[in-house]
Amino acid sequence: MTRWTSMRALWLEDGELTFRDDVPPPEAAEGEALVRVLAAGVCGTDLGLVAGLYPFTGILGHEFVGRVEAGPEEWMGARVVGEINLACGQCQECRRGGRKHCLRRTALGIRGRPGAFADYLTLPVANLHAVPPSIPNEAAALVEPLAAALEVVDEIGLERHHRVLVVGAGRLGQLVARVLARLCDTVDVVVRHPNKRERLPPGTVRALAPEAVPPGAYDVAVECTGDPAGLEVGLAALRARGTLVLKSTYRGRAPLDAGRVVVDEIRLVGSRCGPFPRALAWLASGEVEVASLIDARYPLERGLEAFEHSRRPGTLKVLLETT
Amino acid sequence: MTRWTSMRALWLEDGELTFRDDVPPPEAAEGEALVRVLAAGVCGTDLGLVAGLYPFTGILGHEFVGRVEAGPEEWMGARVVGEINLACGQCQECRRGGRKHCLRRTALGIRGRPGAFADYLTLPVANLHAVPPSIPNEAAALVEPLAAALEVVDEIGLERHHRVLVVGAGRLGQLVARVLARLCDTVDVVVRHPNKRERLPPGTVRALAPEAVPPGAYDVAVECTGDPAGLEVGLAALRARGTLVLKSTYRGRAPLDAGRVVVDEIRLVGSRCGPFPRALAWLASGEVEVASLIDARYPLERGLEAFEHSRRPGTLKVLLETT
Repeated sequence: MTRWTSMRALWLEDGELTFRDDVPPPEAAEGEALVRVLAAGVCGTDLGLVAGLYPFTGILGHEFVGRVEAGPEEWMGARVVGEINLACGQCQECRRGGRKHCLRRTALGIRGRPGAFADYLTLPVANLHAVPPSIPNEAAALVEPLAAALEVVDEIGLERHHRVLVVGAGRLGQLVARVLARLCDTVDVVVRHPNKRERLPPGTVRALAPEAVPPGAYDVAVECTGDPAGLEVGLAALRARGTLVLKSTYRGRAPLDAGRVVVDEIRLVGSRCGPFPRALAWLASGEVEVASLIDARYPLERGLEAFEHSRRPGTLKVLLETT
Repeated sequence: MTRWTSMRALWLEDGELTFRDDVPPPEAAEGEALVRVLAAGVCGTDLGLVAGLYPFTGILGHEFVGRVEAGPEEWMGARVVGEINLACGQCQECRRGGRKHCLRRTALGIRGRPGAFADYLTLPVANLHAVPPSIPNEAAALVEPLAAALEVVDEIGLERHHRVLVVGAGRLGQLVARVLARLCDTVDVVVRHPNKRERLPPGTVRALAPEAVPPGAYDVAVECTGDPAGLEVGLAALRARGTLVLKSTYRGRAPLDAGRVVVDEIRLVGSRCGPFPRALAWLASGEVEVASLIDARYPLERGLEAFEHSRRPGTLKVLLETT
């Protein structure tokens, strides 16, 4: 390997995203690996960060597949994906076992930690998972959001007979619909844009326009739009004692029909990152297919174009490739 | 017993509450009992109905104790309390066992069914529970809200070590605090009004002003204010993966920090009516004390004054007595 003195990266500062080729490569600390990024996906959270969802300065990107170039001997050369939360291991939440809720956590490309839209990143090896050879890079780059989709299953006592509504068929909604379609007989998806509707897995889910959603008909609704209107659609679709899973990060406050929540004893469950090992297992076994969600690939130096593309209505996944 | 041709009642019509003495007494249908009301409590929902929370025309009131004067032989003369939801027994929700969520339900004094602020009411005997002699009327009249408070326990996997915050120390918050103080070591109550603070059970719970609530410190928060500000206080007080129980009915939309719900994987649980048998058992065993919550008693014909009193800041329970 050649050690570079500078590397390429997409850099966010003061709300402006720029391509830079003068960023110092990160150094792997004790217990960390230096990972050469192979491919990375643009996520709604990345677009949100550019728009000011949370304050962040530095390299964006948290969905990636890469290869370990430096670090502990047993990881050298491994093709890896990585969990994005870096926990302190000491605080009250870490001691309870909820490391993803560490009170002092950083998160790759989201909070206090340089991300994956670069030639290199570093992560603790505790965060890494080796990628089986059968999973191509383009699918491995989607392990992080697929794991987030799988987390929905763990948050609720999902049963095969449950009637499930997925609100939104964007990047996350498509993955959630694919996962839930393997587990439940009835999975309807609220979708308006034709491109998103066409990309739903054929034969297993039913597409519905928002105004066609039957009220009070579902046991579970999963809100994947990040829009308060989606929360409203999901809530209205639930039967009494139904569960609304919130997957999307929101900006500001969403108006909630709290009266409905109380009278019909609805549950709302927030859900974030999920289990990487299961996402890898589902991809390796072909249980779920994700490569068809990719709309476009761009080399890293055309990253700003990739972001523009990602913002176009109806766009699903855009990948950045560094090699 | 003397069968009256007219009876006294508090009647709501077009947003105006009036005392009437010309209301025809209800007739008990097959499977129902005619109940002489002994005492009935004024609840926040009653005040809400007068203010237009839901459309309702007729006799208000749903918290009561009474004596059966007509109906099935085995109930004759029994002192009873009654569950407020009348289910059809046929619809999809009834067949699932969730009779309180019956799609065609009526609710005593709340929806499509004359209520308890009257000399008489009728209810199916399936809704009735006999009151043990050791429970005085003034406590029995509070069985319905006490059952609602107990429902909180069933909605969440409550454990003794859980740190619990009750937001609001009004009629419902006081009952919730009393119940949870028996089950958890740490129960803090957000309260501002001195009268409400003084009525908290001594030695078992700690009173906090809203601005003194430590953020991120509680496993469970129970919103009992019916005010969006209370929802905000409860949410901010929860640790990651904490549970916010919504007990109060709301008017309109409440602004929800949905981003916090997602990132910290918070659960919101709506909770309404609860288990009458357990409420009666807790009262009979002295596990919980409720009579100290009563601020005033009014005869039924002074019902409008009772409502005025109930609206005064700091007021807890006002009872209407019919005999």
